[in-house]
Amino acid sequence: MAVVDVTVVPIGTGTTSLSPFVAACQRELQQHGEGLKYELTAMGTIIEGDLDLILAVIRRLHEVPFNHGAKRVSTVIRIDDRRNKTGSITQKIKSVEARLKGEG
Amino acid sequence: MAVVDVTVVPIGTGTTSLSPFVAACQRELQQHGEGLKYELTAMGTIIEGDLDLILAVIRRLHEVPFNHGAKRVSTVIRIDDRRNKTGSITQKIKSVEARLKGEG
Amino acid sequence: MAVVDVTVVPIGTGTTSLSPFVAACQRELQQHGEGLKYELTAMGTIIEGDLDLILAVIRRLHEVPFNHGAKRVSTVIRIDDRRNKTGSITQKIKSVEARLKGEG
Amino acid sequence: MAVVDVTVVPIGTGTTSLSPFVAACQRELQQHGEGLKYELTAMGTIIEGDLDLILAVIRRLHEVPFNHGAKRVSTVIRIDDRRNKTGSITQKIKSVEARLKGEG
Repeated sequence: MAVVDVTVVPIGTGTTSLSPFVAACQRELQQHGEGLKYELTAMGTIIEGDLDLILAVIRRLHEVPFNHGAKRVSTVIRIDDRRNKTGSITQKIKSVEARLKGEG
Repeated sequence: MAVVDVTVVPIGTGTTSLSPFVAACQRELQQHGEGLKYELTAMGTIIEGDLDLILAVIRRLHEVPFNHGAKRVSTVIRIDDRRNKTGSITQKIKSVEARLKGEG
Repeated sequence: MAVVDVTVVPIGTGTTSLSPFVAACQRELQQHGEGLKYELTAMGTIIEGDLDLILAVIRRLHEVPFNHGAKRVSTVIRIDDRRNKTGSITQKIKSVEARLKGEG
Repeated sequence: MAVVDVTVVPIGTGTTSLSPFVAACQRELQQHGEGLKYELTAMGTIIEGDLDLILAVIRRLHEVPFNHGAKRVSTVIRIDDRRNKTGSITQKIKSVEARLKGEG
């Protein structure tokens, strides 16, 4: 299981507002993100699950701005893939919080 | 005001566990992040505030793994800086959620 | 045609030297990068070509450190996909250089 | 000495062409990048040198699109900082090439 962060940004659309594109990406995730857990952040979307499923849905997200008229899209994907332990979104944050409390 | 995402990763430490380093970075933020709002995610830390203050504290975060014995550090910083509207962490997410509801 | 930058970094391998992993990724590209143009930089590899072919080979590159014993891998992918003009590696750089000369 | 990759992208400018902005960033580097070595790639600029000098010039690069009318700028910075060995742009690439030849 991997945890992946993705940001899809249209270039040259003439508007500084990205929320319509981000909302369209969220709807795409709702429709095609079966089996995945995802979370919207202020800087992108964090997705947890099988890496191949995640990359398949990210491929769809990258098309979203083109489907809404963009001619150039910049997408940044960061994969954190750990195979000696289950690294879920929840576990990763809990793990840090436990250390912060323990050493408070 | 900018919103910035930062991930600081030590290379070659011999352990796949990063939580001790992430926790140390969180403590650094608690001590030196005055005037900034920040939020831990599964993929890094999102910081909101004055860009120069943010970059100064990120400079400190980048040193944290070295202070804990690392010899090589990989840091990724993504800056989203919007100057025609206040782009806070909360506002950015609300803006997308409002669109999702409106078009539900 | 897209231009994509990829960096694949093993976490927790106990060595700060990444060149064995980078070399293994280059060999993977030589064997499975048919139809693609690629270029090693000091910070990763830039690949040009059909986006689906690029993503398929990047999926392979991400496995390389695991095949060499790593238990955790951090991969960063940046896609620049422009559809109203051919955006090759060469053309992108020439385009900037032409402007620099013109305005020198 | 660190090696850093930076990409500065204006959002909402109404044009998919980024070369005017990239050229303006290159001129900024020519004027304010003393003591640094830098190299334009198809995906950004790679800078080598003292980390604080690099971050200071990147702070300037981030302003360039705003000075040319942009209202929102997305900047991605990736720092590779190795302190047990000099990690220059040239040395990093040579190191991989030596391995590729040796194992050819």
